[in-house]
Amino acid sequence: MIPAQTRRAPPALPEALRREVEDFHAAYADTLDRGDIEAWPEFFTEDAVYRVIARDNLEAGLPLCLMLCEGKGMLKDRAYAIAHTEMYAPRYLQHQISLIRVTAFDDAKVSAQANYVLFETLVDEPTRILQVGRYRDTFARTEGGLLLAERLCVYDSVTVPNCMVFPA
Amino acid sequence: MIPAQTRRAPPALPEALRREVEDFHAAYADTLDRGDIEAWPEFFTEDAVYRVIARDNLEAGLPLCLMLCEGKGMLKDRAYAIAHTEMYAPRYLQHQISLIRVTAFDDAKVSAQANYVLFETLVDEPTRILQVGRYRDTFARTEGGLLLAERLCVYDSVTVPNCMVFPA
Amino acid sequence: MIPAQTRRAPPALPEALRREVEDFHAAYADTLDRGDIEAWPEFFTEDAVYRVIARDNLEAGLPLCLMLCEGKGMLKDRAYAIAHTEMYAPRYLQHQISLIRVTAFDDAKVSAQANYVLFETLVDEPTRILQVGRYRDTFARTEGGLLLAERLCVYDSVTVPNCMVFPA
Repeated sequence: MIPAQTRRAPPALPEALRREVEDFHAAYADTLDRGDIEAWPEFFTEDAVYRVIARDNLEAGLPLCLMLCEGKGMLKDRAYAIAHTEMYAPRYLQHQISLIRVTAFDDAKVSAQANYVLFETLVDEPTRILQVGRYRDTFARTEGGLLLAERLCVYDSVTVPNCMVFPA
Repeated sequence: MIPAQTRRAPPALPEALRREVEDFHAAYADTLDRGDIEAWPEFFTEDAVYRVIARDNLEAGLPLCLMLCEGKGMLKDRAYAIAHTEMYAPRYLQHQISLIRVTAFDDAKVSAQANYVLFETLVDEPTRILQVGRYRDTFARTEGGLLLAERLCVYDSVTVPNCMVFPA
Repeated sequence: MIPAQTRRAPPALPEALRREVEDFHAAYADTLDRGDIEAWPEFFTEDAVYRVIARDNLEAGLPLCLMLCEGKGMLKDRAYAIAHTEMYAPRYLQHQISLIRVTAFDDAKVSAQANYVLFETLVDEPTRILQVGRYRDTFARTEGGLLLAERLCVYDSVTVPNCMVFPA
């Protein structure tokens, strides 16, 4: 089972830091929802780890991921491939992200979680649920603002994401 | 018709209280989404009332509920039954909760509302919408933080929840 | 492509203004979700513009809208027609709105965006996704609080909204 988060926000969590995390999510989702995939790696640190993993795999201790990028170079390669070389039907994505919660923080890092839903719309098809999951994030606090040092996307949905094109 | 809420937040609503309500929702949803059903009654007061009711029943003044628990003992019985004695296909739940609004508060209580969506994923099936509704809550302010004195889950969805296993 | 928003909140964005925008969304959604359509025009200024437009039309520079109201008079006419003269099957609506972000503000105006999902439930049918989109808003700051001077609802969904009855 996924471990419980602490029930309350960490003591003395600054309001400004909560807002910084919320604004990060809004900008991140906005970038992907606009289809600006090549700007996506800029939300990560140089040595960031990005993984999209099925919840039952994670809970069973199986390492298999739907997407895995280690380091910003891999994120950029992935983004370039999606933008320029891969073949797929045109589609729109939209994120809903709620229940954003900071679970721990210090001067260097912030741990946070959030629930997300990805809605996908293909031309002439009704909008469908592509993926439902939660982010388990570690942000690095840098002079330029928050950057993802680790993003783990743990998704419930199993059937549909076989055709996942864009990152969560 | 469901009565209108006041359009603005109540005067002098403290930011800390807003955040406490938001954090409560995040912890409550996290507990159910992780499947930790036996921790669920701990979000309620000893004499709490928990009801899940269809919107058209509520608006017609009909008392029939999909779930009804009066007192923490009944909540614990229900949680125990779900965890240990009931038979159902394994499934994952995920909450989206947005538009959280505090409508009234004093030193002892907080009234609040929020919109929720429950997404359900059964093994090898696409994620589906289980229930769409809103919470109408009364929280008790205790030394240990907020606890639900009353949670009314008013759902729009009629067809699917015949097979509702977990609480909203 | 829809232009990028700035990645961070504007400098010195007051917390109170963020909350005012969030409370506006909650009250607006609550009004429509309760079916109180005749109260809907009260969220707009006298010369407000309200448009619901498909994302591919907007990106292609095509002006065709699913709904267009110019001025509060047109909004009231529309609301009256929905409440009193149009024929449609009874239905419940529910909004989810997340990732609310203020992108610019001054003493007179606030620019903001948010992602929305409209869930629709017809009698004896499962809840479905009616429309997924984002709000691009300009609020006027008035003595009575925020009012919409312009609301652009840019939706991804193409197939379903042919039967859109209520505004987003």
